[in-house]
Amino acid sequence: MIEDKNNARTPLGELGEFTLINHLTRDFSNKRNTTIKGVGDDAAIIDPNNEQVVLTTDMLIEGVHFDLSYMPLKHLGYKAVVVNLSDVCAMNAIPTQVTVSIAVSNRFSVEALEDFYAGIKTACDIYDVDLVGGDTTSSVTGLVISVTAIGTVKSENIVYRNGAKPNDLLVVSGDIGGAYMGLQVLEREKEVFKVNPNNQPDLSMYSYIIERQLKPEARKDIIELLEKLEVKPTSMIDISDGLSSEIIHLCKQSEVGVELYENKIPLDPQVISVCEEFDLDSTTIALSGGEDYELLMTISQQDYDKIKGNPNLTVIGFISEAAVGMHLITRAETKVELIARGWKSF
Amino acid sequence: MIEDKNNARTPLGELGEFTLINHLTRDFSNKRNTTIKGVGDDAAIIDPNNEQVVLTTDMLIEGVHFDLSYMPLKHLGYKAVVVNLSDVCAMNAIPTQVTVSIAVSNRFSVEALEDFYAGIKTACDIYDVDLVGGDTTSSVTGLVISVTAIGTVKSENIVYRNGAKPNDLLVVSGDIGGAYMGLQVLEREKEVFKVNPNNQPDLSMYSYIIERQLKPEARKDIIELLEKLEVKPTSMIDISDGLSSEIIHLCKQSEVGVELYENKIPLDPQVISVCEEFDLDSTTIALSGGEDYELLMTISQQDYDKIKGNPNLTVIGFISEAAVGMHLITRAETKVELIARGWKSF
Repeated sequence: MIEDKNNARTPLGELGEFTLINHLTRDFSNKRNTTIKGVGDDAAIIDPNNEQVVLTTDMLIEGVHFDLSYMPLKHLGYKAVVVNLSDVCAMNAIPTQVTVSIAVSNRFSVEALEDFYAGIKTACDIYDVDLVGGDTTSSVTGLVISVTAIGTVKSENIVYRNGAKPNDLLVVSGDIGGAYMGLQVLEREKEVFKVNPNNQPDLSMYSYIIERQLKPEARKDIIELLEKLEVKPTSMIDISDGLSSEIIHLCKQSEVGVELYENKIPLDPQVISVCEEFDLDSTTIALSGGEDYELLMTISQQDYDKIKGNPNLTVIGFISEAAVGMHLITRAETKVELIARGWKSF
Repeated sequence: MIEDKNNARTPLGELGEFTLINHLTRDFSNKRNTTIKGVGDDAAIIDPNNEQVVLTTDMLIEGVHFDLSYMPLKHLGYKAVVVNLSDVCAMNAIPTQVTVSIAVSNRFSVEALEDFYAGIKTACDIYDVDLVGGDTTSSVTGLVISVTAIGTVKSENIVYRNGAKPNDLLVVSGDIGGAYMGLQVLEREKEVFKVNPNNQPDLSMYSYIIERQLKPEARKDIIELLEKLEVKPTSMIDISDGLSSEIIHLCKQSEVGVELYENKIPLDPQVISVCEEFDLDSTTIALSGGEDYELLMTISQQDYDKIKGNPNLTVIGFISEAAVGMHLITRAETKVELIARGWKSF
């Protein structure tokens, strides 16, 4: 499906490990004044300037988390970084540095890894983070990626998952369900391609949702917006699994209940139309789809005026006492218990 | 060779991802006052108390970096943490936190992962570091481990690889070559085991070198010793590859030359006798063996009196101008050019 326009193919074995990592990272430079030492020593040195350090890590496995038959390596490099930056943002922090380790089998060429690192560099440039370390090694089969992201935040600004209080508003950034429907379109095209490799599909009508799947963004802009609006959420989490399982995480850790309004869940028109095309219920997709990397937060009611009418933030429900339980209020105004149907790895 | 005394076997699929990670980390608790938030949120929060943050990461792949036929999972967990702590120590810093991510195939049981995490816990306890995050996911084949280690260091105490100056002394901690010879013994026993699985080898005469391979230590004690002795090395690196390639790293980054004395290289008597048994030259093993995780450093001559006679530190050479080149002075007092024969991943 995705054409390899780069015909050159240099076997990995032609470069040694040190030469390879130097080659792949040659275009990276450090932009952050908190980066005291990047790649090239036993470890990186970061000066958090009296702020606290946020640390998160994630591992992505070929055949489990991504499928290279429709995921270009450049996009994969971008996404691998972004999903970790998203976790940093979910602490109300600004991401500052990443490390990227990869294990690759010999079926990958130097040119393929160049594409992968081009994606990492794009993410580093767009999000203003420095690549400060990592590891490049061989694998027996397939591609394994491990990214660690670092951020900094003033102690008083940290937002945990466990701070939601009864009467707080439940708020989500952007719109949801798109990444999952993008995946459905890509999976369908992969099956079509298997039958007829000459088929050139027109995917332009799916461009938004495919981009949501292949090139998700971390909502660093929302962290900056919240600071500008002087809103400190009472709790926050990023939506890597479905909306429902993330809401349940927030509520369980905060020991509260919730009422979520089906008619308030923000959906892009393309998600609605593609759900119809696939004969899927768009609310189910929003609740269980995953990989949108939007931010889910709770804010105090007194902050409502500050976010009212902001197109980036939608109030989708409110927090109640734990005893009330966790419910979805449907369009038909019936109350349904909220259950987690997030992605299960095993 | 290593008997599985634990006969219970719970398939991984019986526990979900969240339950599994909670189960595996249930005995871990945070001991460090710099750990503000450990596992359980989008990211960990670390307060470096105005010190600088040291960050390093490493990936270990089954079949490339370790062989489970002689590496017990508990030792593997221990070693995976320790090799990263060693990198933190090599910056003259004290390790404080780690994250551990693993990808495992279904051939591993919950009990096997419990062994692996028991090794991680032992390392965390011995080195006084907190496990503050990670990821547990499924792999298509084999076991993949990615560890990130964090440490803290006062800005003025950081030691890089590039600070060696002509006339500095070249110093190594402990003794070297043991880990590599331990691997040779284990590889030989694996071949014997393949022929006769009932063979019960007596490995007691190899206990030191096998432990060097299976349970290496990070020389945090040397960092503490150097502080007590009031010695700040001018450059430092840990010996993960062979001694010669690490010396070459220090010299190239510092733009200096070196004279290394063969008769000064510290070898354990067991290394010497097993080298004889395997008909290998012990100097070659010390220069090229790797995985000893000792610290290689340069110190100013005026600090010599502070380390003189200390059984943990051996002067093995001295630094010269770059133009002089990098040489080994053999026992026969001939000068041989130093070449890197470190481990090559591809």
